[in-house]
Amino acid sequence: MSDIISYIEEHGQDFEQELFELLRIPSISTSSDHKDDIQEAADFLVERLEELDLDKVEKIQTDGHPVVYAEYMPHPDRPTVLVYGHYDVQPPDPLEEWETPPFEPTIRDGRIFARGSADDKGQVYTHLKSLQAFRETGTEFPVNIKFVLEGEEEIGSPHLAPFLKEHKEKLETDMVLVSDTAMFAEDTPSITYGLRGLVYMEFELVGPNRDLHSGVFGGAVDNPANVLCEMIAQLRDDDGQIQIPGFYDKVRDITPEEREAYRKLPFDEEEYKKELDIKALNGEEGYTTLERSSARPSLDVNGLWSGYQGEGAKTVLPAKAGAKVSMRLVPDQDPNEIADLFRKHVENLAPDTVSIEVTEHHGGFPAMTDPDFYGLKAAAEAYEDVYGKEPLFKREGGSIPIIAEFKKILDAESILMGFSLESSKIHSPNENFLQKDFHRAIKTSAKFFEVLHKYKE
Amino acid sequence: MSDIISYIEEHGQDFEQELFELLRIPSISTSSDHKDDIQEAADFLVERLEELDLDKVEKIQTDGHPVVYAEYMPHPDRPTVLVYGHYDVQPPDPLEEWETPPFEPTIRDGRIFARGSADDKGQVYTHLKSLQAFRETGTEFPVNIKFVLEGEEEIGSPHLAPFLKEHKEKLETDMVLVSDTAMFAEDTPSITYGLRGLVYMEFELVGPNRDLHSGVFGGAVDNPANVLCEMIAQLRDDDGQIQIPGFYDKVRDITPEEREAYRKLPFDEEEYKKELDIKALNGEEGYTTLERSSARPSLDVNGLWSGYQGEGAKTVLPAKAGAKVSMRLVPDQDPNEIADLFRKHVENLAPDTVSIEVTEHHGGFPAMTDPDFYGLKAAAEAYEDVYGKEPLFKREGGSIPIIAEFKKILDAESILMGFSLESSKIHSPNENFLQKDFHRAIKTSAKFFEVLHKYKE
Repeated sequence: MSDIISYIEEHGQDFEQELFELLRIPSISTSSDHKDDIQEAADFLVERLEELDLDKVEKIQTDGHPVVYAEYMPHPDRPTVLVYGHYDVQPPDPLEEWETPPFEPTIRDGRIFARGSADDKGQVYTHLKSLQAFRETGTEFPVNIKFVLEGEEEIGSPHLAPFLKEHKEKLETDMVLVSDTAMFAEDTPSITYGLRGLVYMEFELVGPNRDLHSGVFGGAVDNPANVLCEMIAQLRDDDGQIQIPGFYDKVRDITPEEREAYRKLPFDEEEYKKELDIKALNGEEGYTTLERSSARPSLDVNGLWSGYQGEGAKTVLPAKAGAKVSMRLVPDQDPNEIADLFRKHVENLAPDTVSIEVTEHHGGFPAMTDPDFYGLKAAAEAYEDVYGKEPLFKREGGSIPIIAEFKKILDAESILMGFSLESSKIHSPNENFLQKDFHRAIKTSAKFFEVLHKYKE
Repeated sequence: MSDIISYIEEHGQDFEQELFELLRIPSISTSSDHKDDIQEAADFLVERLEELDLDKVEKIQTDGHPVVYAEYMPHPDRPTVLVYGHYDVQPPDPLEEWETPPFEPTIRDGRIFARGSADDKGQVYTHLKSLQAFRETGTEFPVNIKFVLEGEEEIGSPHLAPFLKEHKEKLETDMVLVSDTAMFAEDTPSITYGLRGLVYMEFELVGPNRDLHSGVFGGAVDNPANVLCEMIAQLRDDDGQIQIPGFYDKVRDITPEEREAYRKLPFDEEEYKKELDIKALNGEEGYTTLERSSARPSLDVNGLWSGYQGEGAKTVLPAKAGAKVSMRLVPDQDPNEIADLFRKHVENLAPDTVSIEVTEHHGGFPAMTDPDFYGLKAAAEAYEDVYGKEPLFKREGGSIPIIAEFKKILDAESILMGFSLESSKIHSPNENFLQKDFHRAIKTSAKFFEVLHKYKE
């Protein structure tokens, strides 16, 4: 392994220069003006993969942008890792806020500045380079590897689930390795093993057929805005428990081990409140703040509207009132089931003084890697070896719907081995990737591939 | 009295022509372009009053438009009636919707079409003409009369309460006669003896210092939009009782006599629901729809806002949420006290996860004429004599704040003797006054003045 580490250290400069070539391609998926750039970025990756003498390298067309696929399967009896990442990037706007142009990679203060440096070109490229280190040092690659690099992540991966279904057998794998998340803090490696799912609903109440004078009708005609509030108030109780019948039926409890791990996370509640400028926190009784925001489901009003919202006073009894309400889900809640439960519940809550219309927006399944999955143990050893400290294990409150799709379609656990930071400013001007993390990520990747098969029972 | 009635019938055409002169003056108080027109309308009334040989006729300046004042006090031992009305009008917009120009009075289908025909020039002018009928027939005017005709009613009477206070002794009266409301239906004379008051509040909750990602923070950070709904839901209970401590302390109960009168009103609940397109009504337990909308206080959300209100979904945990809430009050609730109770209550309800800011908008006292007041009995006899049927006695749910000021400042009961109809379209294009009601109103006024002193104990 020391050969490999030496190789990575010696060729660090070359790796950066190669990455810069990729970063110079404005492969913005949200704009149809950049179709050629998308192709160019895909072709660049195909060429770099072809240089690695793999079994197979393909650019596979979809109904959208192509997927770059590769595989190298030297060990039929050892685990297979599918590396998932994306070569498309967010638009760079607002351009004037960039200190150096987004598609001219520049190193400043030990950081690589460029759109895509952290999200996700810079991160995903590290796995190609670790593979190269094995090859160039004449070290046998110890496991099997597949690559699925897509060009539509920033537009919601519309063609990825169909792609996974269509190529299910070809993509067969023991795990999915994703480097597209952030570390808890600088020099604090973290493995995300849980993500929440999402259900996003909207409902509108209609009372009388027009806005009424609140003097003439107030007290006799039920007010849809009052009713809306009364309905929303019934969605959670004083202990922060969501009151939709059946909502918690499939919620997997946090294990004692997880709670122990949560307690060890470097989290300062006073600092958290101060940063948000709030005097007190509130959530589900019996759980900590970090548990509430990542391992327990939540229900939030995202928008409210009714009647007169302007300056001053208008004595109107509004005809309509509406709300957008989203729920974050945890394993094993099913967004389709929860959407149905929500719909039925609010339809039941609505009194006969109003009519109700319920709309469902997008959703996604929650995802969780089995904490005992051997791949996580290998990832932990790799991090510890490179960073000199044990990684934190964490669940995140947000949603990456495609992770659940990997589990559902390929029956594969995911390992979220992220190397960016909050200061990497993904999706914002001056996106950057800490130079030393780019190099440490390559080493961590190599170490992971080296030790993985030892953990397989 | 038959002389007087004959005189009114013989001179009906002249009265209409005089009214037309007044209606031709575009005395729009909301626009400063019409200052001269306001003066011209005031001068017109001064001249007509001067022709009646009264004791005193004055145009009294205020900080706004002038008040036309007149008095005729022939009987120190008999009641005094102060006729209140206004000579200013609403703007006529949208002009293109008028079938004939708003300031060119026209008779069509037995209706006088013009801005101000019903609100209030046409109605208030009837009292000048009944007074004239007494004078021209050589009939002794049986009571004392004062006129207060203002030019700022359509802009909220900003200088009327100060005027009443400043001229309190001069304005001393036993009652205020106001013809500026509508009848329950055509040929259905009605006396309004109660009006609700108003308190209009607004409050806003602020949670975190910025909109948050609902995935990252949802469940841990309290959501101001959810909190807002939970607070509003606590403002009334399942029986429609308002839950602000002390709110009902000064509410005067509906008397058995009033309830009996309410039951006699020609009201069809099925028709009411059908017209509003609602399946069910809801309000305070134990009261009928008409009682709820006029004799009981109410609480209505007039506006609600928070977070994302656009198309589709945005997963935001909003930093702020706000509401406008108004309450209609009944005697003897005090809007200032209720505003304080509301403020204290919502401040108490707000949890420490949010900060709250409460704003008070305008308000007004409720008003009620003592149902046993002899002036009402005289009005009833007058209506019955002219319309051939007993008038209905009703309370209205809306607010005319100046009525409470007459009571507070002059300690005078008000008699709301209105002659317009819902079809009179006040404040709208094609405002009109039923021609026959203009003439019946003059007769009713004369009859009222004739019989009034007989009812005084």
